[in-house]
Amino acid sequence: MARFRLDEVDHHILDILIDNTRTPFTDIAKKLSISAGTVHVRVKKMEEAGIIIGSSLTLDYKKLGYAFIAYVGVYLNKTSQTKFVLERINEIPFVTVAHVTTGKFNVFCKVRAKNTEHAKQIIFLLDDIEGVYRTETMISMEESLNDKKRLMHSIFNEIA
Amino acid sequence: MARFRLDEVDHHILDILIDNTRTPFTDIAKKLSISAGTVHVRVKKMEEAGIIIGSSLTLDYKKLGYAFIAYVGVYLNKTSQTKFVLERINEIPFVTVAHVTTGKFNVFCKVRAKNTEHAKQIIFLLDDIEGVYRTETMISMEESLNDKKRLMHSIFNEIA
Amino acid sequence: MARFRLDEVDHHILDILIDNTRTPFTDIAKKLSISAGTVHVRVKKMEEAGIIIGSSLTLDYKKLGYAFIAYVGVYLNKTSQTKFVLERINEIPFVTVAHVTTGKFNVFCKVRAKNTEHAKQIIFLLDDIEGVYRTETMISMEESLNDKKRLMHSIFNEIA
Amino acid sequence: MARFRLDEVDHHILDILIDNTRTPFTDIAKKLSISAGTVHVRVKKMEEAGIIIGSSLTLDYKKLGYAFIAYVGVYLNKTSQTKFVLERINEIPFVTVAHVTTGKFNVFCKVRAKNTEHAKQIIFLLDDIEGVYRTETMISMEESLNDKKRLMHSIFNEIA
Amino acid sequence: MARFRLDEVDHHILDILIDNTRTPFTDIAKKLSISAGTVHVRVKKMEEAGIIIGSSLTLDYKKLGYAFIAYVGVYLNKTSQTKFVLERINEIPFVTVAHVTTGKFNVFCKVRAKNTEHAKQIIFLLDDIEGVYRTETMISMEESLNDKKRLMHSIFNEIA
Amino acid sequence: MARFRLDEVDHHILDILIDNTRTPFTDIAKKLSISAGTVHVRVKKMEEAGIIIGSSLTLDYKKLGYAFIAYVGVYLNKTSQTKFVLERINEIPFVTVAHVTTGKFNVFCKVRAKNTEHAKQIIFLLDDIEGVYRTETMISMEESLNDKKRLMHSIFNEIA
Amino acid sequence: MARFRLDEVDHHILDILIDNTRTPFTDIAKKLSISAGTVHVRVKKMEEAGIIIGSSLTLDYKKLGYAFIAYVGVYLNKTSQTKFVLERINEIPFVTVAHVTTGKFNVFCKVRAKNTEHAKQIIFLLDDIEGVYRTETMISMEESLNDKKRLMHSIFNEIA
Amino acid sequence: MARFRLDEVDHHILDILIDNTRTPFTDIAKKLSISAGTVHVRVKKMEEAGIIIGSSLTLDYKKLGYAFIAYVGVYLNKTSQTKFVLERINEIPFVTVAHVTTGKFNVFCKVRAKNTEHAKQIIFLLDDIEGVYRTETMISMEESLNDKKRLMHSIFNEIA
Repeated sequence: MARFRLDEVDHHILDILIDNTRTPFTDIAKKLSISAGTVHVRVKKMEEAGIIIGSSLTLDYKKLGYAFIAYVGVYLNKTSQTKFVLERINEIPFVTVAHVTTGKFNVFCKVRAKNTEHAKQIIFLLDDIEGVYRTETMISMEESLNDKKRLMHSIFNEIA
Repeated sequence: MARFRLDEVDHHILDILIDNTRTPFTDIAKKLSISAGTVHVRVKKMEEAGIIIGSSLTLDYKKLGYAFIAYVGVYLNKTSQTKFVLERINEIPFVTVAHVTTGKFNVFCKVRAKNTEHAKQIIFLLDDIEGVYRTETMISMEESLNDKKRLMHSIFNEIA
Repeated sequence: MARFRLDEVDHHILDILIDNTRTPFTDIAKKLSISAGTVHVRVKKMEEAGIIIGSSLTLDYKKLGYAFIAYVGVYLNKTSQTKFVLERINEIPFVTVAHVTTGKFNVFCKVRAKNTEHAKQIIFLLDDIEGVYRTETMISMEESLNDKKRLMHSIFNEIA
Repeated sequence: MARFRLDEVDHHILDILIDNTRTPFTDIAKKLSISAGTVHVRVKKMEEAGIIIGSSLTLDYKKLGYAFIAYVGVYLNKTSQTKFVLERINEIPFVTVAHVTTGKFNVFCKVRAKNTEHAKQIIFLLDDIEGVYRTETMISMEESLNDKKRLMHSIFNEIA
Repeated sequence: MARFRLDEVDHHILDILIDNTRTPFTDIAKKLSISAGTVHVRVKKMEEAGIIIGSSLTLDYKKLGYAFIAYVGVYLNKTSQTKFVLERINEIPFVTVAHVTTGKFNVFCKVRAKNTEHAKQIIFLLDDIEGVYRTETMISMEESLNDKKRLMHSIFNEIA
Repeated sequence: MARFRLDEVDHHILDILIDNTRTPFTDIAKKLSISAGTVHVRVKKMEEAGIIIGSSLTLDYKKLGYAFIAYVGVYLNKTSQTKFVLERINEIPFVTVAHVTTGKFNVFCKVRAKNTEHAKQIIFLLDDIEGVYRTETMISMEESLNDKKRLMHSIFNEIA
Repeated sequence: MARFRLDEVDHHILDILIDNTRTPFTDIAKKLSISAGTVHVRVKKMEEAGIIIGSSLTLDYKKLGYAFIAYVGVYLNKTSQTKFVLERINEIPFVTVAHVTTGKFNVFCKVRAKNTEHAKQIIFLLDDIEGVYRTETMISMEESLNDKKRLMHSIFNEIA
Repeated sequence: MARFRLDEVDHHILDILIDNTRTPFTDIAKKLSISAGTVHVRVKKMEEAGIIIGSSLTLDYKKLGYAFIAYVGVYLNKTSQTKFVLERINEIPFVTVAHVTTGKFNVFCKVRAKNTEHAKQIIFLLDDIEGVYRTETMISMEESLNDKKRLMHSIFNEIA
């Protein structure tokens, strides 16, 4: 569990990339007064170390017709079914997040749907997975915050 | 609430970009047998329509020392304080997601911390916001799924 | 608490009217082989006895843009505030039903709203009534049954 | 999901009919300074569009000996049984409302009964439906509000 | 459901007997300035009407070594088992009260035991009845009030 | 906490009296082949030892118009108010039993009322006691068992 | 249930030993101005009476890599399985305490683990015991107090 | 957070001492075929490293008249009061364990008392601490397991 050490340069590079992954390496190099090659080497190194897993677009789900968000707590009959159930959950693209929890629920999911009717169908899919005993749903009225960038900046500032 | 219409070309472009936001437009153009200019125009259009909000890196939080995830339900004294409390929550970088919910909790947050001790400090920060009446925490034992790409593919396939 | 006694004729008249309140009295008279005057007298009598309170249209709320139904449990600071709070609730037209209950909640309401956003606003209105301590919401995914006619038929059959 | 457009005349007609469905069309016509034929055409149109589903009497349940109201939450063994259970519930006339919910309960019902003993029998009927796992009951101490007319006026005022 | 009418004399007799069931009828007669025969007739009549069911001693359970009181909520697998389970409960003398309830529990019992160990054994007996799904126990720290006489006086005063 | 020792004779006397407190001592004496004086002495001794506290009538509450039973859990603001609140509860004759509990509720009461409306009034009285924070009610659908005689027989058999 | 009587000397000896079990008997003798032989006899007597069961080291679990503490409530299918399940629990060394409880849970355990991942494995072991229906976990953020010595001093002071 | 490294010899010494803290070092030395001086040095080193914090007697609480165990969950008004409340809890010797938790409760305590009455007094003490909002109690019916030795052996075996 020994952690990869990021130095100040790595930090500055990440700081720029998390705001815009498409920033050309030459622009980054110029800003940090280093060579574009160095940027390239550093990013590669962080990718190989598994710190940078990939990149993705941030889309506006509302504009795409997916305005409905629900959190669904899943109760299993037996925790030995956890792995099997997670594989089934993994086949439902509308479940974007799933956690194994040990409190009230066995598995806790985040669901994005088009509307109430669609959410009902997705929840029924979850309910019908073999080994799922019950589900309990909490509906979001407003997504007020969804921003990992503040956390990332905080992490890099701390390490640097 | 009229939605922006994506055609099949937009969809193919998004399909490629969500897997790797750094894919050069020339590569996309070649794959789709269209000109790089078209790719550029389309992406621009989707950015202007607010469908593409931005891009971000997917980092490995465990490798960065942030292995602890908790969901925190927040009870407010009065819902009229919701906006004020959300602004305070917004100042805590370790809260990466916050939703207004109307069930058991008033606000529901996702927290990323280094460890139990760190999580306790963050939860205490939430507890001490003026207007917060109580919090209730559920701890994640394993983040089994965190993947919006499957949803995005599903959306694009459906629309196309 | 002595109840008004309905005879078989009253019952037949109600049986017809609950299915269509606009059925002309002459049609009812013909069906029951009695005079239209008798129908008139009986209906009048049941109105005066307070059994028939009025009549109303059954409208399709979805078509009118009100597809969202929620049940909201209201906790009061003190039950002595019940009457005051009910008067305030009575000013919110989107609350169509309200009951004083003595279990978990003090007051239990049914709310009809346009959508999630609208429901949030209505729940906030309830939350902000003086004397309301908290609310807890349960959202309907589908109104599967809303039919008092079966009950009415059952009552009349039993009495007749 | 395109909605039928009601104009101001429709609105005025509905406004009158929701207060008394038996108002003669000639009276409505006089009040609105239009012809009785127009009233007839408009009502017909709204019936055909499915906006007006029907009409019903508002009766005083207490005077009919049905003073006891309870809300019953139903837990199912599997949500795949929802449709089957709703059909069974539909055979019990004392259940006047039933909703599919996805929170704590799978189905949520409103029950009208004569008294405690009668309510017990109805709840036992619900409990004994195949696929029903448990029920949980909340008893109404007072029906303080049951009025859809305020909502309807609000809807029409808003649209007009 | 027509109730037996008690007159003022009945009331005075009951008022005396509920404080001491062994009061000689001659003493009651003297106090009320009526004949002992009248007292006899009235008591007989109230016994025949089923108003007076019997009489019992009030003993001090603590002094008899039964200081531990618990309330036990019983969940059944199916309410159709209620009658059967109540018969089994009826065979456990340490359960002094049992109610059919329709809220959280199916049956709610009062248990008197010698101590914690004894209470555990009784609760295990309840748990092991066929058809009992679970039990949940609430332990009394102090029996602060156990007095039906105040209620009886209140009833008689009201009727008289 | 040394307990009074009951011998076999005491036990036989109690066994007879708990079934009918009005059994003449001469009848008891005859049954047990002892002198009436001995019965008198033993009963007196048990009264003085505080084992026999008194005697009371068993009345049929339903016939007296009190068919409604509820259990009410009371939450206090502070347990230091327990004594004060119990004194206030003690002034409400419709509360026949009250226990200090330390689980979910602070005080747990049994209430006998005429009907739903009356129960509501009594619960409101409890709610309005100074120091009472909230109440939660569970309504009895059927009093299936209310019999301390079985327990008493069990105690006496065990001791004898 | 007659208790062994400790005199003042026993108490003084225990008072010293609970702070340091390795204190030589000659040191204790000197402090109390009694002979070492008396100390020996008294300790032996208390061991034979079963008052002193043994002695153990107090270790720092954090330093040994066991910083994670959780309380796990266990629900059984049937209380008749309690003994069997406790034997299985007894085979998991990471469960340091287990109680039979009769409230919400059937068995309540304290678990010490290395970290979140390890705790998950232990909880899964508990979940997979035959007869275990579900578990519910509460995680400790800080062990603020773990000290039986204050209680022991309090007991000895009271008795002496 | 670097941990002290225990070697096989340390482990063997601890293995013997946790079963009997009074084992003479010469006995340990003989068993392990090392010198008594080495045992002394090693124990000293582990004490200085803070791994061995102390030693204590294992007493039989039942025989000392403390048979009653309860777990008490404490809710605070504000988590900022946690430290203050823990100091007050620390003054009650009957609370042997206290944890800061972030789930349902703010603080979770283990209480040992003589009996129900004594437990009530202790719980009232907790309830009356300034900043404590409510407490909720779970009573142990049987302490089935209380043994840290198995964990210690497990730890040492793993490390060795």
